[in-house]
Amino acid sequence: MIEACPESRKNIVESSQVPSDQLEKFFNPRNVAVIGASRNPQKPGRVILENFLNPKFRGKVYPVNPNAEKIAGLKCYANLSEIPAELDFVVVAVPAEKVPPVIQECVNCGVKAVVVISGGFKETGERGKKLEEKIAQIITGSDTRVLGPNCIGIYDAHSGVDTLFYPPHRLPRPSAGKISFISQSGAYGGALLGWAATRGIGISKFISCGNMVDVNEIELLEYLGNDPTTQTILMYLEQTTDGRKLIEAARTIVREKPIIALKAGRTTEGARAALSHTGAIAGVDQIYSVAFKEAGIIRANLSEELFDFAFALSLQPPAQGNRIAIITNGGGFGVLATDYAVYHKLQLAELQLDTIAELKKRLPQRASVENPIDLTGDASVADYEIALNMALSDPNVDAVLAIILFQFPAINLGIVETIEHAAKKYEKPVVVCTAGGGFAEDCKKMLKSKNIPCYSDPNRAVRAMAALASRGAYLRKHGARVRVP
Amino acid sequence: MIEACPESRKNIVESSQVPSDQLEKFFNPRNVAVIGASRNPQKPGRVILENFLNPKFRGKVYPVNPNAEKIAGLKCYANLSEIPAELDFVVVAVPAEKVPPVIQECVNCGVKAVVVISGGFKETGERGKKLEEKIAQIITGSDTRVLGPNCIGIYDAHSGVDTLFYPPHRLPRPSAGKISFISQSGAYGGALLGWAATRGIGISKFISCGNMVDVNEIELLEYLGNDPTTQTILMYLEQTTDGRKLIEAARTIVREKPIIALKAGRTTEGARAALSHTGAIAGVDQIYSVAFKEAGIIRANLSEELFDFAFALSLQPPAQGNRIAIITNGGGFGVLATDYAVYHKLQLAELQLDTIAELKKRLPQRASVENPIDLTGDASVADYEIALNMALSDPNVDAVLAIILFQFPAINLGIVETIEHAAKKYEKPVVVCTAGGGFAEDCKKMLKSKNIPCYSDPNRAVRAMAALASRGAYLRKHGARVRVP
Repeated sequence: MIEACPESRKNIVESSQVPSDQLEKFFNPRNVAVIGASRNPQKPGRVILENFLNPKFRGKVYPVNPNAEKIAGLKCYANLSEIPAELDFVVVAVPAEKVPPVIQECVNCGVKAVVVISGGFKETGERGKKLEEKIAQIITGSDTRVLGPNCIGIYDAHSGVDTLFYPPHRLPRPSAGKISFISQSGAYGGALLGWAATRGIGISKFISCGNMVDVNEIELLEYLGNDPTTQTILMYLEQTTDGRKLIEAARTIVREKPIIALKAGRTTEGARAALSHTGAIAGVDQIYSVAFKEAGIIRANLSEELFDFAFALSLQPPAQGNRIAIITNGGGFGVLATDYAVYHKLQLAELQLDTIAELKKRLPQRASVENPIDLTGDASVADYEIALNMALSDPNVDAVLAIILFQFPAINLGIVETIEHAAKKYEKPVVVCTAGGGFAEDCKKMLKSKNIPCYSDPNRAVRAMAALASRGAYLRKHGARVRVP
Repeated sequence: MIEACPESRKNIVESSQVPSDQLEKFFNPRNVAVIGASRNPQKPGRVILENFLNPKFRGKVYPVNPNAEKIAGLKCYANLSEIPAELDFVVVAVPAEKVPPVIQECVNCGVKAVVVISGGFKETGERGKKLEEKIAQIITGSDTRVLGPNCIGIYDAHSGVDTLFYPPHRLPRPSAGKISFISQSGAYGGALLGWAATRGIGISKFISCGNMVDVNEIELLEYLGNDPTTQTILMYLEQTTDGRKLIEAARTIVREKPIIALKAGRTTEGARAALSHTGAIAGVDQIYSVAFKEAGIIRANLSEELFDFAFALSLQPPAQGNRIAIITNGGGFGVLATDYAVYHKLQLAELQLDTIAELKKRLPQRASVENPIDLTGDASVADYEIALNMALSDPNVDAVLAIILFQFPAINLGIVETIEHAAKKYEKPVVVCTAGGGFAEDCKKMLKSKNIPCYSDPNRAVRAMAALASRGAYLRKHGARVRVP
């Protein structure tokens, strides 16, 4: 299978390249080969080949399989050098022991970006580890970059690159958006993509790192930091390649783009599980906590927080402090939100006496004008407008959590514009919580379309608010200009 | 509006009645009157009237409004005594100051069950408190029982009683099921009903307590304890009428039926909010923790936990200990589940050497046979069957969390029966976590239909498992026979 490539396509190491240029071909290749393309429609090599036939991908794809003439209607090639095109991206889905010679072929042909899907490397023991070291040796000194092995590679919703070997009927793909996601677990990342797709959440780039024989999470982070289609970066980590470099890279990026990370293997037992999963040395969790704080990385504990925080941080300005006002038309939700706010180290803002007096004067008598401001079930949109404007203009208030229950007929969809206007006017973050049936769900979508993050549970809304406060505190401390989205 | 009722219908106090008999008419009345029925289709009195026209309700409903001839096509009455039927249930939706004379009328007419929807009582201050005391005086010595005021009353999915004043297009009603729910916040309870309805979760009885001038959360709990259509009881509490009585009532009930409670106002700030919401004295949270533990009440911290725990506790047997085995086809999820298990005070079971040897022999080499057992993405249903049976038969394992990612084509829906059979065979709880797209959602529904609780996040699955362990520990400690659902 290994043949020499024409001299013109040989590798030349260009040491002046910035890392992001080196990774560019992973996301925007012209000619792609799938080594290990299979006639069996269930096999990874076949699913991946068909992904590249999606009209979104503008380049060409070539199946490589010495034992087939045609796969999925495409002429099959015995090896890379037979392919009549300059290849920039190769996906490798052959058994582990066959991977090193294939990588050599990629180097010979000057391929810039190689994704190794195959497992059976260091995660399985000593023999696999040796194979991985072989790959590292082969690419040393070349400008062939390798992602993986033991990964699911890349999904780029903008360019159509899709090396996920999950058939689309099993895992729907998300639409194009502005959230990018680096995952050290392929299956975890994949499941979250499916979750995002069914909820209409857009994704820009998804990258599964696998065993990181070459390309690691830090380089990928730097790439996404410079990527114009990425507005927010999510990470699932089991370890870091280099704590200091991660901090350095993140510190620059977070001034412009929020980074939210879920670190698994936090407990001793979890760390042991991570070791047998990706061979990760999960490290002492406390060190990660300190490092994330230093780097301005917002830490998520739950999968839902990755996206919940991403919405808040990409749609609303960071909070200038942690003093929040809660406005509600359901008392119980106000009580719960207050408890959650205290748990998550937010303060219930002490409204100025002027604000309280004005609220008393302008709101109906039934309303409770302490914080939480309980407008009660009879609250109209006009009541919310008064409460929102008074709370947001109070210098003691850094952010507002508006709880809106749509089961009360006194409230109508006019609330969407009211909230949009108030949030824009005061440049303080506003987050909404609404729960109930289909009507509430419709309202949530409308609010999101107006850049208002909206959650179905007060605890989720409060945690998102805490993320906004945490980002605000970091940016203030490090003298960064606070960006209003 | 107040008239004397015929002598035959006057109240006689029957002190030998057990409380549940006294409350029966709230859930299964024959003749219902709505006082304050309105011509305005948005008003509570009108929405409630129309709820009783639902074909599910087998009794008759009579609107009371001295200023209308007909409402919603029904002849209107000026007062109760004009109604040519023996009334057993009356809904009151008139302004607060008009409520006491109406209650007197109910007593005169021998009405057993009265729901007062109206607000404007002790939650608004001294004047409202006096009105409430008046109601208490009026019903003393009668067998008229009053639910409320300041509540949304009752929704009984079996009998069709529905006093919720939320129009159905704003708040869909859940189908009939076996979960009952007592809420000290109407709006909160209502929103959760809508949430349940849109997720296809069935409800038996929902009761909003309001200010509890008469019927309180403890009597309601006792009633649900004896109710054959209630299998699991949920509670939203801001306070308790009598801690000792609550514990006594719960201790008897929990031997048969799980009780799950969300207590709001846990923090000082939250307690203050509760005071202005329902006038509740939320009390010291630590006392509630001790009381719930003593009573065998499972504590929820989040709304989603109320239903998550209800599924686990009603579908699976309690765990005989806290040693769990995790089986997964996605390594990252296994690592996360391990972390969450440790947080929630579960132990990763130490598999017996025999079990490990047998797993090694029977599973493919790629599988990691430590706990978490990682079958990897190539796992087949047969692999799961081996792992499930080996883990469940290991005496060191009290429960199994199976994580199943359906993005991998190697796994098919045969897994549903495999899990069902294994769970039944060993009488140890099995809980499933699956995440991804629509295919995973379909599988979740199938698993639930086979009595396997299924969650979309490992943390939710682990918390549900912890609830099963907590219930098991309580029942063992108190010598109760463990019921296998």
